[in-house]
Amino acid sequence: MDRRKFIGGAAVAAAGTLAACGDGNGNGEASTVAAPAVNRNRTRRLRMVTTWPASFPGLGTAAEATARYVREMSGGALEIQVYGAGEIVGAFEVFDAVSNGVADMYHAAEYYWQGRSPAFNFYCAVPMGMTAWEIMAWVEYGGGQELWEELSGQFNIIAFQAGNTGHQMGGWFKREINSVSDFRGLRVRMPGLGGDVIRAMGGAAVALSGGEIYQALQSGAIDATEWVGPWNDMAFGFYREAPYYYGPGFHEPGSALAVGINRDVWDSLPADQKAIVKAACRAANNQSVAEFTHHNGIALQTLVEQHGVQLRTFTDEIWREMGRVSEEVVANAANADAITRRVYDSYIASRRRSREWANVSETPYLQMRELVLGG
Amino acid sequence: MDRRKFIGGAAVAAAGTLAACGDGNGNGEASTVAAPAVNRNRTRRLRMVTTWPASFPGLGTAAEATARYVREMSGGALEIQVYGAGEIVGAFEVFDAVSNGVADMYHAAEYYWQGRSPAFNFYCAVPMGMTAWEIMAWVEYGGGQELWEELSGQFNIIAFQAGNTGHQMGGWFKREINSVSDFRGLRVRMPGLGGDVIRAMGGAAVALSGGEIYQALQSGAIDATEWVGPWNDMAFGFYREAPYYYGPGFHEPGSALAVGINRDVWDSLPADQKAIVKAACRAANNQSVAEFTHHNGIALQTLVEQHGVQLRTFTDEIWREMGRVSEEVVANAANADAITRRVYDSYIASRRRSREWANVSETPYLQMRELVLGG
Repeated sequence: MDRRKFIGGAAVAAAGTLAACGDGNGNGEASTVAAPAVNRNRTRRLRMVTTWPASFPGLGTAAEATARYVREMSGGALEIQVYGAGEIVGAFEVFDAVSNGVADMYHAAEYYWQGRSPAFNFYCAVPMGMTAWEIMAWVEYGGGQELWEELSGQFNIIAFQAGNTGHQMGGWFKREINSVSDFRGLRVRMPGLGGDVIRAMGGAAVALSGGEIYQALQSGAIDATEWVGPWNDMAFGFYREAPYYYGPGFHEPGSALAVGINRDVWDSLPADQKAIVKAACRAANNQSVAEFTHHNGIALQTLVEQHGVQLRTFTDEIWREMGRVSEEVVANAANADAITRRVYDSYIASRRRSREWANVSETPYLQMRELVLGG
Repeated sequence: MDRRKFIGGAAVAAAGTLAACGDGNGNGEASTVAAPAVNRNRTRRLRMVTTWPASFPGLGTAAEATARYVREMSGGALEIQVYGAGEIVGAFEVFDAVSNGVADMYHAAEYYWQGRSPAFNFYCAVPMGMTAWEIMAWVEYGGGQELWEELSGQFNIIAFQAGNTGHQMGGWFKREINSVSDFRGLRVRMPGLGGDVIRAMGGAAVALSGGEIYQALQSGAIDATEWVGPWNDMAFGFYREAPYYYGPGFHEPGSALAVGINRDVWDSLPADQKAIVKAACRAANNQSVAEFTHHNGIALQTLVEQHGVQLRTFTDEIWREMGRVSEEVVANAANADAITRRVYDSYIASRRRSREWANVSETPYLQMRELVLGG
């Protein structure tokens, strides 16, 4: 997924929206000393800017769930107002806005900040990387959070996991893909490190906004596109132009979403509100994994049974080549700076442990369950 | 896993512990009208009884994490005191204790209450059932929670997910298992519906407490045992007596843990404290999935690299038979009462959707990642 251009059209600050919310001072309440825990009559308001259109299913709704939990748990003492992309700042300006205090917090996918450091990729998704629960294990228990705080701390931000799309699909293709050579010259909409892999395989990876994809497929400007998964993909109707739905994707096996908070704002929160924000993020993460699993299952049934979608998977030969190139692309990214090297080493060590565990648990269980029930 | 006898030895109410906590009235504070949200000077204390020994890794710690989140988020206004099995009531008395108000809440595995209704099994784990994230999807978004509230409501309890062990292993075997006939006469420690499957395959399933297992293996009283997974199994040192470690298990593919709350206590909580308890359970669930994934990976490496454990998996033939019998055992359980039938139907429909989604995402991704990285 890449929402850069998808949401680019809305990247204009809506001053009227700000005024309507009754809080127009740029720096929010970052410098306000919080009321003591026994005095909750005064409501503190924080502004969350996001990289998603307001209420976008699974992504925008995870941001809104986080805010709702905080409001409910604090009895209204802490109010987080969620702004869609472009309502205060453009989607890709949210990181700077939170860093410099124009907004208090963001909800986003960390790989959007890879221009600051490739290390941010590992806090969302990398090709041939970890699944949702594997990333959760690494960040929460495997040293990932500590490195993340060091990384984001350079930008006066502290970030937590607050959502996960689960596995993303390989994409919609106009023609069947049977060999590595079929990628030569293929025009595929795929952003980021995954796009680098497509390019290294001889294809032309292009970035298009969600809203631009359908027309590009229809006109023949592109031959294939990935977006997210069945739940989010179905709404765009890609199946009408590209009937072969390849799964799974190699490029985003469990994309984490994150809340980033201005460090001064975070430090100013009393201990109970810090705990509330942190638990709200974890609860939102939990719900997000469940929500995508549920809705992807329903949407997949609809796509196959009602829209006649043809499910396909890449051949072993293609996987070997995509995998080999992916490992190179990700390893090269680690050379960019010292913090990325340390994040990469920590991530790869955790992936190795999780792979070994999956090899004797999750993977054979799912295979054997299908052996029994799939006949 | 079956902690019935494991914790049975501690099933004596410790009146001294109760007194030390300064709250000895049997009915807790169930009838106390909560203070309004603006007056938090008074601390409300709730007592959580558990089916785990205090601080037992992954299980007892999930209960304690839930309590800690609530305390931190409420600024100490809501204090949950966690009691290990036997400190107030015995492990398997916690359901009745919460139902009748002797305690305010429990942390447990719902399949312990299958004697009340087999429907409770589906809120923990059933043979050939759903994985951790699939159960989360069903309970949170697929209608599972509503049915659970109807089921537990019959006992004046409301329950939420608050932990998950992830995949459990198939167990430790003294001899290799190569065919279905090897189960004939095999004495396996395995509780619950999984034990019923072993019996239907000609084996002798026995229930033993964790503390009894090692000696039973050593003396030859049993030929094999399952417990939880690498993290919890390693501590018992089973590898010294039964070198073949079979994985995965067919019987508990992602065992959910739950917090159950006395309905009168729940109804008496103000809205913000309800939200805090609910989010604390979801946050604890999120952390638990991450914690088991992390620690199982580390423990598996230690078992293989330092203790020379031999990893094995059951043959396809064995899986087909275990699977066939499992489906029969679980379907038969659904005939017990009307609510179990409805829970079963809802669960199986959700499992079908999740299976179809896993078949194009999680399963092939894990296989292909290993094809690339495992060589």
